[in-house]
Amino acid sequence: MTDLILTTFDWVPETPRGYVRDIRARWALEEAGLPYRVNSVPFRDRGAEHFSHQPFGQVPWLTDGDISIFESGAILLHLGNRSEVLMPANPRSRSEAVEWLFAALNSVEMASLPWSILQFSGDTGDTPGWKHLVEFLSARLQHMEMVLAGREWLVGTFSVADILMADVLRLVDRFDGLAAYPACRDYVARATARPSFVKAHADQMAHFAAAD
Amino acid sequence: MTDLILTTFDWVPETPRGYVRDIRARWALEEAGLPYRVNSVPFRDRGAEHFSHQPFGQVPWLTDGDISIFESGAILLHLGNRSEVLMPANPRSRSEAVEWLFAALNSVEMASLPWSILQFSGDTGDTPGWKHLVEFLSARLQHMEMVLAGREWLVGTFSVADILMADVLRLVDRFDGLAAYPACRDYVARATARPSFVKAHADQMAHFAAAD
Repeated sequence: MTDLILTTFDWVPETPRGYVRDIRARWALEEAGLPYRVNSVPFRDRGAEHFSHQPFGQVPWLTDGDISIFESGAILLHLGNRSEVLMPANPRSRSEAVEWLFAALNSVEMASLPWSILQFSGDTGDTPGWKHLVEFLSARLQHMEMVLAGREWLVGTFSVADILMADVLRLVDRFDGLAAYPACRDYVARATARPSFVKAHADQMAHFAAAD
Repeated sequence: MTDLILTTFDWVPETPRGYVRDIRARWALEEAGLPYRVNSVPFRDRGAEHFSHQPFGQVPWLTDGDISIFESGAILLHLGNRSEVLMPANPRSRSEAVEWLFAALNSVEMASLPWSILQFSGDTGDTPGWKHLVEFLSARLQHMEMVLAGREWLVGTFSVADILMADVLRLVDRFDGLAAYPACRDYVARATARPSFVKAHADQMAHFAAAD
């Protein structure tokens, strides 16, 4: 088995630390116990080699032999296909894990990320746009609250879908956006208490601190 | 082979017609020549049965035997696994199709959807939030422009990744957001000229018109 190589930035500012998306891949790799090493690319000077692996100039990407994969969702799906710890084996549960993986990105993060961008901008006043974005996120969180009130993990056992969903909701929680959604908060607390998340988070923090 | 059943709303208002996400699944099904039928659920009164298939109360979902799948990305990945017309067979190209499928949703639509929400809200004035969202989308489109200037389709041959990416960019084009990105515009024109898109679009328009 070739070693997996996860590439992230060499350094990022304080604010995104602990939230850079390499944490999703680190977390999955730790859960699965797959051997990997971490490689760095410059944050300040992103070259052609970087864009050849990640066409938006973002991180992370994963190298597995001669295959290089960008997009955290695609990386987690790839790892899920390598380890039953990350994705259940039976076709129906597996299909559910895949749909929830997409739901984390395209139904929940689609609503939470613009909301956090406006939070970062301090642009949370009495504008129609802000109100629409708040409504958009609230509707999605209300549905997630109903889903998570009834289950420990999204698909029976813990899977890559939970890694993505918990990581997406974690950023909402950072801005206290889960105050009205106790089941979502409990879910984030439950997921981030897992030793694999704790290690992935500590490793990311140490990685960026080493470059200061 | 069991028939595939695609479920969408029975009716939607004028504005979203032609853009409801069932078009992504219709388009893929037409490309692959897979037999399917279309089922309807009420737009105005969404019941427990609806939420059991689509926990956010949205559409579409696809039923394939005893498997029911929501999220357009998950549906297209499922169909891609059923037909080589939709996803190349060799592992490396297949992996590229999957990462671009995620990129359409999580790197491009993540930026284009909030931008269109603020467009719909008419909230495009001199606010920090609007400026951030415009910058976010512009950055992504600049990178897509570089990618699409050099290739006909995202991964050698046409694939589900192109269905998602073209559909995402189509909504930007609707608000004239691709004026500065000729390769993106040409790509949308090229994709939507395909007979399968033309049929899928006409079928969706006819479906909603029938309920007026």
